[in-house]
Amino acid sequence: MAAKAFAVVAGVGPGTGASIARKFAKAYPVVLLSRNPANYEPIAEEINSSGGAAFGISTDTSDSKSVQSAFEKIAQQFPDAPLAAAVFNSGGGLVRKPFLELTEEEFVRGYESQGKGGFNFAKATLPLLLRGTGLEHPPTLIFTGATASLKGSAYFSSFASGKFALRALSQSLAREFGPQGVHVSHVIMDGVIDIPRTKEYRFEHPDAKLNPDAIADTYWFLHTQPRTNFGYELDLRPYVEKW
Amino acid sequence: MAAKAFAVVAGVGPGTGASIARKFAKAYPVVLLSRNPANYEPIAEEINSSGGAAFGISTDTSDSKSVQSAFEKIAQQFPDAPLAAAVFNSGGGLVRKPFLELTEEEFVRGYESQGKGGFNFAKATLPLLLRGTGLEHPPTLIFTGATASLKGSAYFSSFASGKFALRALSQSLAREFGPQGVHVSHVIMDGVIDIPRTKEYRFEHPDAKLNPDAIADTYWFLHTQPRTNFGYELDLRPYVEKW
Amino acid sequence: MAAKAFAVVAGVGPGTGASIARKFAKAYPVVLLSRNPANYEPIAEEINSSGGAAFGISTDTSDSKSVQSAFEKIAQQFPDAPLAAAVFNSGGGLVRKPFLELTEEEFVRGYESQGKGGFNFAKATLPLLLRGTGLEHPPTLIFTGATASLKGSAYFSSFASGKFALRALSQSLAREFGPQGVHVSHVIMDGVIDIPRTKEYRFEHPDAKLNPDAIADTYWFLHTQPRTNFGYELDLRPYVEKW
Amino acid sequence: MAAKAFAVVAGVGPGTGASIARKFAKAYPVVLLSRNPANYEPIAEEINSSGGAAFGISTDTSDSKSVQSAFEKIAQQFPDAPLAAAVFNSGGGLVRKPFLELTEEEFVRGYESQGKGGFNFAKATLPLLLRGTGLEHPPTLIFTGATASLKGSAYFSSFASGKFALRALSQSLAREFGPQGVHVSHVIMDGVIDIPRTKEYRFEHPDAKLNPDAIADTYWFLHTQPRTNFGYELDLRPYVEKW
Repeated sequence: MAAKAFAVVAGVGPGTGASIARKFAKAYPVVLLSRNPANYEPIAEEINSSGGAAFGISTDTSDSKSVQSAFEKIAQQFPDAPLAAAVFNSGGGLVRKPFLELTEEEFVRGYESQGKGGFNFAKATLPLLLRGTGLEHPPTLIFTGATASLKGSAYFSSFASGKFALRALSQSLAREFGPQGVHVSHVIMDGVIDIPRTKEYRFEHPDAKLNPDAIADTYWFLHTQPRTNFGYELDLRPYVEKW
Repeated sequence: MAAKAFAVVAGVGPGTGASIARKFAKAYPVVLLSRNPANYEPIAEEINSSGGAAFGISTDTSDSKSVQSAFEKIAQQFPDAPLAAAVFNSGGGLVRKPFLELTEEEFVRGYESQGKGGFNFAKATLPLLLRGTGLEHPPTLIFTGATASLKGSAYFSSFASGKFALRALSQSLAREFGPQGVHVSHVIMDGVIDIPRTKEYRFEHPDAKLNPDAIADTYWFLHTQPRTNFGYELDLRPYVEKW
Repeated sequence: MAAKAFAVVAGVGPGTGASIARKFAKAYPVVLLSRNPANYEPIAEEINSSGGAAFGISTDTSDSKSVQSAFEKIAQQFPDAPLAAAVFNSGGGLVRKPFLELTEEEFVRGYESQGKGGFNFAKATLPLLLRGTGLEHPPTLIFTGATASLKGSAYFSSFASGKFALRALSQSLAREFGPQGVHVSHVIMDGVIDIPRTKEYRFEHPDAKLNPDAIADTYWFLHTQPRTNFGYELDLRPYVEKW
Repeated sequence: MAAKAFAVVAGVGPGTGASIARKFAKAYPVVLLSRNPANYEPIAEEINSSGGAAFGISTDTSDSKSVQSAFEKIAQQFPDAPLAAAVFNSGGGLVRKPFLELTEEEFVRGYESQGKGGFNFAKATLPLLLRGTGLEHPPTLIFTGATASLKGSAYFSSFASGKFALRALSQSLAREFGPQGVHVSHVIMDGVIDIPRTKEYRFEHPDAKLNPDAIADTYWFLHTQPRTNFGYELDLRPYVEKW
């Protein structure tokens, strides 16, 4: 019997990652990666207690050894299983500072979190995704982008260089692995996401923040696209966002 | 009782437009616009005989009078009704020629079809879309783009200038009408679409053409996004497409 | 004896066009095109009285017949002469209005001025530029872009669709005529230009407007690039401009 | 008496860096940075023996300590002197490999060389450039980009993520330091440069490689632009390049 397909979400906190995990858990067992177990435990519990299957692994995606160790555990749990979907949603790496006050460590943090984190995640998931080209939906690797993926604003050199690097990676992977049947996408969040951390951000208009469940719906939709119609890049923003 | 919402698709032939019409007809009565009645008649019939409601109006979207006359007929059919979705999918305007052999008429054709056509369609549909902001899904105006929306290739100055103009229009409308609750999107087809006209195009790989039904699924998905998460631009291509 | 090379500048008023004409007049006789003779007469006089050679022709670049008639006069003046440089700097076409108040005529004006104007100018100048591939500097065709060449802002659908169309045209021509030795460039003005018409615009900082003479220096520099190093697109902005 | 302004070029080999150094040496004493002294010694000698002033410092721009030590030497040589121009032209970091064969070290190399290298160089030069806002030409910081600055091609994830990161950095710096009078530019080389290392690349057409002296002319031209007209991004390619 063929091993059952599963999904992996990196960057699971109480916001977007949780919504994505919940959504994909309706179809697949889901592995939740986050540095801090407190981030994924409530969601894993919630999924498990509502008929789904999920477990978390404490992982620092910017650290290749941590990622390797996580995927060894995953291999034990899902031996030879194809990966149906992998979502890189790691936050972190956001520093906002006048350039001359930025330390090397702070500058590099954007890349560590996004560029290198994305690399480690892609390196670990692509061999498993390639096993899944016969599944109902083409195996899918989705990267979460931001306004800073397209624009290097003043004071944002660290985060923007990380997000630009992640976008370069995603393009390169889409061009290499698309023809092998893996759907690689890059979704740009151009706005504040409505998560616990942004509760205090108030806007003049209602509905001015991106809804994380609706982000998850978009990721799921991309996942269901057939290989004839791979969507690569989509920008999402609240209706009142200035851009 | 409130008037029932409907949808309009411009550029209905036996390919993408037909698939979009079929898809939206599952939820709304659909008006089909095309210059040639032979283009929409079979689809209208098919929709009507399978439980939906559709009718066509012979319309040249590049001609403001023709568009005005079409929307007068629509107003009679759907008095005061909100427009749930409007899709501008007009083809035409594609000329491929060395620049010095291009006549003024041929150059302008790309703009007439795409830029001016898009303007006329937006001008007629936006007042009706604005009536629909209380509907289940935010009222949606989708423009079909192409590779030539982003790249002016040699010999394609006519079509590319039309598609660039259409993209400018769509951006401007997204920025003006998004805050009013209308979802404006621009979807880029980066590949050959699998329609009767492209039957003879053969590729080394299977599934090398964009599937029109899957394009329609994407348009429908964009339509269902809430106003917190308006997707603006998405590029679609077959998995083996070089880009 | 070989005919002497000359230059043509379209869109000569008291601002950028005049500066470009003055600059190129140091090397070539210059033909000045503008609808209104009052626009080019003072500059022609100034150039002629300071050792250069210039004359103007009343031309509407959006009207192919007007352009044709202008280039017949040019052919009489410079029979068989190669064209060293052609600059398309036509302004006009700028309408700023809520979309639903925009008439078809107003919307199309952006394209007429920019897209079609650029086409007519390119059609007339390219055969003459192709004669100039043996000159000291590769023959050069430069188009003046604007912020609206890259961004369709709310209320700017007319101008942006014209400027997007012009950019598409310039890309297509660069790809077709570059290999034939003609240097095609597109220069984006991202800021207010310091010309008589913008005198009243006041900014907090000094030097907050683009200097037209410095724009002319940039155009001249692009003209002097060898064919090994054709610069295609450059964005210019005042140091304090937000972008 | 005010200290004399000088220039710094990072990434000086026998190609583009040498040409840039020679060009700027006509106006300023020039400091040449390269890991390998064999790279800058011949150029320093050549400049010194032909009336200019130049000296090299063995520097690894990806290593902050190495950069710091280099700029301590520079401070001794040019105490309190303003920096007129700083050019980041470091090559390196180019790996071309199927993604699954790429080691973490190889992936990160692109960023180390470009992103972090650019950061270290900017961090060291910006305080000196800010001293130069009263000089004849606005102090200028130029970054050398590549095709991979805009496109993540298959097999190029390492280099492209480094070049994307560098572009993000350059945008962020342009937006922060432009208003302070420092001209930040990013120049994209879209083609093979004609340097010793590319001697063996043969093309069908003559002049098919970018000429390094003409690149230097472009950098110098950007340096001479007044603060009213800062050029930010320019793409250079040989006339026969496909793009």
